[in-house]
Amino acid sequence: MSLIQKTLDAPTWTRKDPEIFAFVKDNFYVAVVCDILDELGYHHQAMHQRLRPLLPDRKNCGFVGRARTARWMETDYIPDDPYGIEIEVMDSLKPGDVVVHSTDYSGRNAPWGELMSTVAKRNGAVGCVCDSQIRDCVKIIQMGFPVYCAGIRPVDSKGRAVMKAYDVPISCGEVIVHTGELIFADFDGIVVVPREAEQEVLQRAQEKSNKENLSRKDLLGGKTLRAVYDKYGVL
Amino acid sequence: MSLIQKTLDAPTWTRKDPEIFAFVKDNFYVAVVCDILDELGYHHQAMHQRLRPLLPDRKNCGFVGRARTARWMETDYIPDDPYGIEIEVMDSLKPGDVVVHSTDYSGRNAPWGELMSTVAKRNGAVGCVCDSQIRDCVKIIQMGFPVYCAGIRPVDSKGRAVMKAYDVPISCGEVIVHTGELIFADFDGIVVVPREAEQEVLQRAQEKSNKENLSRKDLLGGKTLRAVYDKYGVL
Amino acid sequence: MSLIQKTLDAPTWTRKDPEIFAFVKDNFYVAVVCDILDELGYHHQAMHQRLRPLLPDRKNCGFVGRARTARWMETDYIPDDPYGIEIEVMDSLKPGDVVVHSTDYSGRNAPWGELMSTVAKRNGAVGCVCDSQIRDCVKIIQMGFPVYCAGIRPVDSKGRAVMKAYDVPISCGEVIVHTGELIFADFDGIVVVPREAEQEVLQRAQEKSNKENLSRKDLLGGKTLRAVYDKYGVL
Amino acid sequence: MSLIQKTLDAPTWTRKDPEIFAFVKDNFYVAVVCDILDELGYHHQAMHQRLRPLLPDRKNCGFVGRARTARWMETDYIPDDPYGIEIEVMDSLKPGDVVVHSTDYSGRNAPWGELMSTVAKRNGAVGCVCDSQIRDCVKIIQMGFPVYCAGIRPVDSKGRAVMKAYDVPISCGEVIVHTGELIFADFDGIVVVPREAEQEVLQRAQEKSNKENLSRKDLLGGKTLRAVYDKYGVL
Amino acid sequence: MSLIQKTLDAPTWTRKDPEIFAFVKDNFYVAVVCDILDELGYHHQAMHQRLRPLLPDRKNCGFVGRARTARWMETDYIPDDPYGIEIEVMDSLKPGDVVVHSTDYSGRNAPWGELMSTVAKRNGAVGCVCDSQIRDCVKIIQMGFPVYCAGIRPVDSKGRAVMKAYDVPISCGEVIVHTGELIFADFDGIVVVPREAEQEVLQRAQEKSNKENLSRKDLLGGKTLRAVYDKYGVL
Amino acid sequence: MSLIQKTLDAPTWTRKDPEIFAFVKDNFYVAVVCDILDELGYHHQAMHQRLRPLLPDRKNCGFVGRARTARWMETDYIPDDPYGIEIEVMDSLKPGDVVVHSTDYSGRNAPWGELMSTVAKRNGAVGCVCDSQIRDCVKIIQMGFPVYCAGIRPVDSKGRAVMKAYDVPISCGEVIVHTGELIFADFDGIVVVPREAEQEVLQRAQEKSNKENLSRKDLLGGKTLRAVYDKYGVL
Repeated sequence: MSLIQKTLDAPTWTRKDPEIFAFVKDNFYVAVVCDILDELGYHHQAMHQRLRPLLPDRKNCGFVGRARTARWMETDYIPDDPYGIEIEVMDSLKPGDVVVHSTDYSGRNAPWGELMSTVAKRNGAVGCVCDSQIRDCVKIIQMGFPVYCAGIRPVDSKGRAVMKAYDVPISCGEVIVHTGELIFADFDGIVVVPREAEQEVLQRAQEKSNKENLSRKDLLGGKTLRAVYDKYGVL
Repeated sequence: MSLIQKTLDAPTWTRKDPEIFAFVKDNFYVAVVCDILDELGYHHQAMHQRLRPLLPDRKNCGFVGRARTARWMETDYIPDDPYGIEIEVMDSLKPGDVVVHSTDYSGRNAPWGELMSTVAKRNGAVGCVCDSQIRDCVKIIQMGFPVYCAGIRPVDSKGRAVMKAYDVPISCGEVIVHTGELIFADFDGIVVVPREAEQEVLQRAQEKSNKENLSRKDLLGGKTLRAVYDKYGVL
Repeated sequence: MSLIQKTLDAPTWTRKDPEIFAFVKDNFYVAVVCDILDELGYHHQAMHQRLRPLLPDRKNCGFVGRARTARWMETDYIPDDPYGIEIEVMDSLKPGDVVVHSTDYSGRNAPWGELMSTVAKRNGAVGCVCDSQIRDCVKIIQMGFPVYCAGIRPVDSKGRAVMKAYDVPISCGEVIVHTGELIFADFDGIVVVPREAEQEVLQRAQEKSNKENLSRKDLLGGKTLRAVYDKYGVL
Repeated sequence: MSLIQKTLDAPTWTRKDPEIFAFVKDNFYVAVVCDILDELGYHHQAMHQRLRPLLPDRKNCGFVGRARTARWMETDYIPDDPYGIEIEVMDSLKPGDVVVHSTDYSGRNAPWGELMSTVAKRNGAVGCVCDSQIRDCVKIIQMGFPVYCAGIRPVDSKGRAVMKAYDVPISCGEVIVHTGELIFADFDGIVVVPREAEQEVLQRAQEKSNKENLSRKDLLGGKTLRAVYDKYGVL
Repeated sequence: MSLIQKTLDAPTWTRKDPEIFAFVKDNFYVAVVCDILDELGYHHQAMHQRLRPLLPDRKNCGFVGRARTARWMETDYIPDDPYGIEIEVMDSLKPGDVVVHSTDYSGRNAPWGELMSTVAKRNGAVGCVCDSQIRDCVKIIQMGFPVYCAGIRPVDSKGRAVMKAYDVPISCGEVIVHTGELIFADFDGIVVVPREAEQEVLQRAQEKSNKENLSRKDLLGGKTLRAVYDKYGVL
Repeated sequence: MSLIQKTLDAPTWTRKDPEIFAFVKDNFYVAVVCDILDELGYHHQAMHQRLRPLLPDRKNCGFVGRARTARWMETDYIPDDPYGIEIEVMDSLKPGDVVVHSTDYSGRNAPWGELMSTVAKRNGAVGCVCDSQIRDCVKIIQMGFPVYCAGIRPVDSKGRAVMKAYDVPISCGEVIVHTGELIFADFDGIVVVPREAEQEVLQRAQEKSNKENLSRKDLLGGKTLRAVYDKYGVL
């Protein structure tokens, strides 16, 4: 609780990312952050429900980190250097990064697997959102690296798609994502916090959580939902 | 077993709901009830497969109860009283009720979460079918309230949809549901038993279950499927 | 390791199926087999991601066996002998068979359940791929029979579809399957190995697996992905 | 007008089909028949909007006749007699028949073309509803044979689907169709009139048409929609 | 040409709507307006391609006017006053209005037909965008009232959907529309011009059109696309 | 007819493209070519039915030519040179070329319009297949340039997609297309003739057409379809 107070005293942007990440993970839920973003007028920051966590422990399937975006192009042939840019971005990953892959509307690719997870984890990346299929799932689960995906398929990306750019704006799960934006994922889904709203969101989310806790207490105490909602204004 | 005999002796409509619910839960499967409804000419009473149980224990993820229907309308603005009718129906829930939400074809709403589950459970409701997204899933699982949903997404309904009516006929999972109809859900899915067929279904289902048990026994004893089917006529 | 060497020494087609199946299960992953098939020019052998395993143990949810194909037709009435051909193919199942059902684009049928699983298992079949819905799932899980399906729904096939042929070429999960082809399924999905490529695939897959193991080791040892990929050429 | 009076005096089932067809074509619209069926409790008799007329003259693109249903099965091989049953039903067509093909959810078949249209027209059939693709469209338009289809594609059915039955209940455009039912199609779409409702529908539709004519007249005369609706009760 | 000059001299908001509408219709294309909106950062103002014009003359199938929005809710029963709000908004239409119906994701409703078109036209409305089905199409074409729709189906809205609000923000063709916004439709589709951008759009569009005319001239004169694009910067 | 004889005498590959194109256009239908490709074992050469001709004259809406493929990548930002490669391929078009755009699964782009059509036509290209949306349709129809598209939408490609390669294998309408392959389009759709089958297809198609003509004649002469099919073997 003391951490929360301190954080609310000082602007979060004076803090380092690891501290912010720990603060978010310990105090917030993705749903609460979505509500705050709604209040601030950001209505399209929650990724589509097709993106679900791979890790089976639903209390520890998510992550908090900063987006590293990757833009894919579908192909029907094997280009000269099929993995060139992909290898480049993987070798550039830093602690706290979240690899975010652009949307694959064709549904036939599987650009993430065990070796990618191995490199990402070793470099300190905290998670991956792959709006496409993934593979080598049992091994990824064994290493405990958090991945969200649209499906599972055993095929390689080679000859099906090629990464053409990274750290550019992309669409993932129908949300526009910029490199560096805060990505927060738990069992309910994934939310992208725009840079300009980050400070405000972190401050407001705490207040919303408190109201929900009080509402729950009053409801279990026997009050009507009408009375509780009129009192706290959250649902 | 004695309970079953008694129930078959007397019309089920002379019994109270808790007794009927216990009888169904102890003796039937959703699949058997679907077969009986097929026999009686009701071919569209099983909800669509997109509706899956949230609770992880597949033997205890379902429920038996009576439908309380809720009709939603999508919105792209926040109406004056965004939760008014929703709060009304929640405060009106009685023991044995199942909250059944109308189909959300847009797939962008999440009208059910922890506080709703808290109120519903406290009021004695036995489950919820939400043909849309839900949120606060970890907490709902922790409280053990059975919910079936089409997906999981962290967004609030406010500004996305508003409940406009309840206890009216609705479509949920492509099945027309009327308030008061028997809703039976297990890991195989959800079936809606029309009022006028309820008595007949309860009587026939038991007989069908017995035949399946005998078929299984004969098959494991080495008989061909041809022989077993010719004998019992079930598959 | 000695088994692998021996297998590579002699053509796999000189071996009996149980030996081949055990060899595949012990040494390969579905993803590796897909990569080899890609190399050999077979790009459409991995079934669609809508087909997922029913068994909850993700390390033991799959199988290796030979396809027995079944062709379904949708109906909106109950034909004279609704289960005739279905019973015939079930009674003809042999050890090592995998029942593979044709694609049900209507999504309303559920042609596989507990009794089918009981017969299949008793006859020695090792699995089922049902590109449609299935039912009686809790009981199938209890008996540990591996099934892959597109969804779960409690309805019977009677009056919804009828099997019209078996051991004919079918489409399942968007892959053309011929009776007798090797079907390999694990948590990543399902791959169909064409007869003419079977021998070649089994020989190459081992080599690919070795390279992946070496790549992982080097990556964990701190090398860049660039260096590791340049050395082993796999990703 | 005198014909209408006579028809209302005597039950339509005492009349011959050609007279009924002419009566419907001259006096009704498909939309009016749908409204009457709604009133009588038949809410699912209008085919899906994917079925559109091929003939370019929107005032003469439809037909009135009696359904001859055809049930297709998808295939991925060429059966022994790929066209056997199809040829049988085509050679059995009689004046006033409408060939109604079952729904092709795969969307890859095109079971209707010029030669089929030639046979159908020569035998006196008045139209075709093909819930799949068709081909040879320019020639079919040239011969003026009315066809409704879900799309246009140049491929043959051979090796893609095979007709397995006819004159059985089928689903076409999401409507269950029985051989002999009245099929009425104009530019607005296609409606199927159940046998047991036919007489009642024909009697009521005329009255509804009259009210619409009076409503239009009053609206053009300057009355509010409120006043006109309160007076005639149709919209 | 003189009108254009004058319009560019003075702010368009000093002008009356009929003058603005005529100016847009005479000088612009929907595609050019979309490009200008893109330049100004409005990337989601063109409605989805499922919305197509009903009127067959592709040079005169569209309109320019101001949105009057209507919000529908699906129903599975007939409410007490099924047409109440619908009649209210229809009777309130003024010259220059465009009726814009909210998105119907279920695809089963047809809330627009001949009588609605009759009232709308009589009241001076210039068009309708119905992101759902419509009916009575031949008569609407005969009266020459411009409608854009997602499909054609002969069913009434009664018992399928009910209008619950109008002049509220809605989603139509995946674009958020507010009452009063400029709606411009031609054969290429429909664009919604946000109020705050209207003045700027009208000024810039003219310049873009000029460049396209010059580009076309140079291309037909034999220049390469490279040279022409480098000169005018439009494509 | 004499031209046909000559063509059958000598291998078509000894002929120049303009002669081949004229021969195909004058003597064949797309449907017949599909049947021949089926016979030769090429079952996936007809593009998806979503691709429809833009030109309104259904007898002259198509073309015969050789594919020039273009590979697009979706983007959510404007790259440095948004049109660079696109301009390059447009300026490289030669007489007889058909511009074939890769499949746009997102459905939000419109990479073809009036200026592109102007350049293409001026350079002698004979058509365009754009498996995406197009715009400026009225002007394209006015210039009579044949285009097939999946839809019509007024938006520019800039900021939505960028061409990244051309003359590489692509997927268009679910068919793999290689630069240089024969593309034949009429009102029934579009077929891609693989290089290695071209000669054989041209020779066989004529024979098939003759059989269809004879079948039609016999049918109109009163023979049963059974008799006619037994005689000529085509349907």
